[in-house]
Amino acid sequence: MAESAYTELRGQFQEIMRLRSIAAMLQWDAATQMPTGSGELRGSQLALIEQLNHRAMASARLADLLNAAEADAATLPAWDRANLAEMRRQWVHANAVEERLVAEMATHGTLSELAWRDARQKDDFKAYQPYLETTVALARQVAARKAEALGCSPYEALMDSYDPGRTTAQVDGWFATLKQALPGILERALARQEGEGAPPPVIACDAAHQKLLVEKIVTLLGFDRSRGRVDESTHPFCGGFPGDIRLTTRYDTENLLSGLMSTCHEAGHALYESHLPADTVFDPAGQATSYALHESQSLFVEMQLCRSRSFIRWLAAQVNMLPGRSVDADALYRSCIRVEKSFIRVDADEVTYPFHIMLRYDLEKALIAGDLAVADLPGAWREGMERYLGITPPDDRRGVLQDIHWSDGSFGYFPSYTIGAMMAAQFKAAMEQAVPEWRARVEEGAPGEVLEWLRHHIHRHASSLSADRIVQQATGKALSPDDYLNHLTYRYVDALY
Amino acid sequence: MAESAYTELRGQFQEIMRLRSIAAMLQWDAATQMPTGSGELRGSQLALIEQLNHRAMASARLADLLNAAEADAATLPAWDRANLAEMRRQWVHANAVEERLVAEMATHGTLSELAWRDARQKDDFKAYQPYLETTVALARQVAARKAEALGCSPYEALMDSYDPGRTTAQVDGWFATLKQALPGILERALARQEGEGAPPPVIACDAAHQKLLVEKIVTLLGFDRSRGRVDESTHPFCGGFPGDIRLTTRYDTENLLSGLMSTCHEAGHALYESHLPADTVFDPAGQATSYALHESQSLFVEMQLCRSRSFIRWLAAQVNMLPGRSVDADALYRSCIRVEKSFIRVDADEVTYPFHIMLRYDLEKALIAGDLAVADLPGAWREGMERYLGITPPDDRRGVLQDIHWSDGSFGYFPSYTIGAMMAAQFKAAMEQAVPEWRARVEEGAPGEVLEWLRHHIHRHASSLSADRIVQQATGKALSPDDYLNHLTYRYVDALY
Repeated sequence: MAESAYTELRGQFQEIMRLRSIAAMLQWDAATQMPTGSGELRGSQLALIEQLNHRAMASARLADLLNAAEADAATLPAWDRANLAEMRRQWVHANAVEERLVAEMATHGTLSELAWRDARQKDDFKAYQPYLETTVALARQVAARKAEALGCSPYEALMDSYDPGRTTAQVDGWFATLKQALPGILERALARQEGEGAPPPVIACDAAHQKLLVEKIVTLLGFDRSRGRVDESTHPFCGGFPGDIRLTTRYDTENLLSGLMSTCHEAGHALYESHLPADTVFDPAGQATSYALHESQSLFVEMQLCRSRSFIRWLAAQVNMLPGRSVDADALYRSCIRVEKSFIRVDADEVTYPFHIMLRYDLEKALIAGDLAVADLPGAWREGMERYLGITPPDDRRGVLQDIHWSDGSFGYFPSYTIGAMMAAQFKAAMEQAVPEWRARVEEGAPGEVLEWLRHHIHRHASSLSADRIVQQATGKALSPDDYLNHLTYRYVDALY
Repeated sequence: MAESAYTELRGQFQEIMRLRSIAAMLQWDAATQMPTGSGELRGSQLALIEQLNHRAMASARLADLLNAAEADAATLPAWDRANLAEMRRQWVHANAVEERLVAEMATHGTLSELAWRDARQKDDFKAYQPYLETTVALARQVAARKAEALGCSPYEALMDSYDPGRTTAQVDGWFATLKQALPGILERALARQEGEGAPPPVIACDAAHQKLLVEKIVTLLGFDRSRGRVDESTHPFCGGFPGDIRLTTRYDTENLLSGLMSTCHEAGHALYESHLPADTVFDPAGQATSYALHESQSLFVEMQLCRSRSFIRWLAAQVNMLPGRSVDADALYRSCIRVEKSFIRVDADEVTYPFHIMLRYDLEKALIAGDLAVADLPGAWREGMERYLGITPPDDRRGVLQDIHWSDGSFGYFPSYTIGAMMAAQFKAAMEQAVPEWRARVEEGAPGEVLEWLRHHIHRHASSLSADRIVQQATGKALSPDDYLNHLTYRYVDALY
């Protein structure tokens, strides 16, 4: 019975994942192809898929099958047990919260996001405050329900959607270490940079040339054009589904590096998706694991691989093959590793970025715990920026109003950025042991061994292992900020690579 | 109860239509954007949608709702009664045939289409014959089941999928008239053409210029770019869904008219779809009605409007605005109305086209009736071509193997082409009464009244009226070949316009 229950259950989840793969194509189309006036139709199509997924997840039959399969899970092979566990986790997230509350979150999220866009433009937190208050109130209800179902704290229950099983004890511990070590690294990095004189000029580049360079980069990184596309979108993302990855990029003609580095970042996501085992892409355990691990792959490719001096030398050579172009590799590299205390997270460099994340983590944890009122948020934000970076945002637009995440209730996501950065550095350190010549290979345009290391140690496991288990197996030690701090020190203080 | 049963039923059908609208986007993507290696994923996505639709159509609840709503249909407003009738028709088509047979048709259809492609390339009917024999055998079973459910002949049951309610008595009658009148028209058209001397040279044009002209044409025809796109595909089609119409075209650089006229044709389909009332696009009665009426719209725009001397004069003026281009409007018009007895239907002109259709109608009717064996088909084809056009195909590639339709079992579709052409001519004659100045308007680039006539008399009714009823209302008389024969005589024999 367990066998047959599991088989039927697996078929039902595969159907749900296949529907999600359809939604992913429609979302890509909406961002890159869809006419401006077709949003209502697209909205109704995506809402139907959402509804069908919800119906499938909420069905009594699915719940019975899940119970029956679990009752005899011991007879299943290890991979299927992991698949079953991931099904249960998804089931809990889908069923812990009553339908009324889910609908309220969705409806309010749309309104709240609109209010946020408007408030940010007008720098008017007061106008947005009642929306955010409702969002926080709803998110706290969701967190409470999920915490009960998952047996963890409310904030951990929210994090679980993005980084399954993550505890605040872990995050608090890692962030305590960062808080201690990072300020010194930052000051020394700034001092070293100061000693180097004026920053190199920002390089302008027309879209046609950037497009050629993007082609070269994605080819170098092994992006398979027979099962994927590269298009333009306002906000670059990696969409589609394994088997048909839809990567997008943008061409900032004022700043060559900006678009290219965002391509490298999204290509890291794309590599992960495209290396997932093809025969299980519709199984829960066959999907990419946590958002944190996903971010580690984009950050590995962008920060560890493509902002390395070796890659930049290769890139400079490519730029210089274009008619009428001449860039200096060292200047390009110095542009890549500029450090600056600034207000906007998405524009922040690698050294100051974690301060932005720790601030948001502090604040959203307090909001969900009920220890911080939304009315007090702008002040708390300013204080945090002063504490972490010693700078004060001149307005809320460059402060509490800058990020979209809270507007639609995505609390618990922010830590994934910095956990991903830690993982990326730890993977890099391990990869370096296995492929000691990697810098020379990258400089000559042959990063194959590096990519293969990622595929073998990370990508192929999909969600059959937890993110932390993947880190442990790939690097021989538990996740910690050590390699991350070493990386920042080597690159930004000692300028060793 | 009827009220509430109908309301729930309507919701279920709207969900089915919404799923179909999603499939339409995926199909457009597959033809224009999808990477070459992603066919398997796309196939599995489309198969899931098919499966969900089938499940919905086959559900006991839907059958109960349909019965309950029909039991009290008299209390419903007229539009809803039409909607209910269309639901029943779709339900019969979906449920008349047992699932096993549907699956067998689908599986065999894929294999058979592959075998047909191969056989056509190699001109090897014998290799394809066993596949077609199975296709015909399966189609005859389907036809028998549907005939029983619909209370009509087996061939009529197949036609009903494309042209609801159409009878062979009607088609036989119309085609008898055509068989009598057309040969004389054709001979006189050829004689007139002969007297005009050598054909005008075919005009080559680069894709960039054609693209500009396509832009001008779709803009002239009122194609709304805020709710639609124009892209390239190997075989032009009108895809997407009302609210987001995805028109495709192709640029034949050797032959300017070829790509432009196919754009006009597909734009006719697009206009119909985009003029369907927006609030009922997910209702069965809110969809476009028969394929024959759909074809009448593409043929109205292509044949009646865009191959008119007035439109060609406008088009020549547009071409001549392009740098370095000079075309003669009269020569262009003569190219547009060239007549020639030829073997390939899709390349055939307006006068010889109906002979190709009548041949296929004779043959497929005989195949479904069991009066013609597949083994005798190539010979019957050759005889038919000799009888209708007095020419003998030198091989099966230019004979029985040329069309895709039979390979996947689409019997009953062919008559729609000529019925659509008859409708288009009858609509044109009626429109001319209402907008007597239309030729002058079109020549000056203002076809708005013509398009508005189509919208008002045809498009806005969707499927709330039958195609024949729409023809009757719009033209004041029942559908007949009279206006069609007049049109062909005026244009090709008398050269009156």
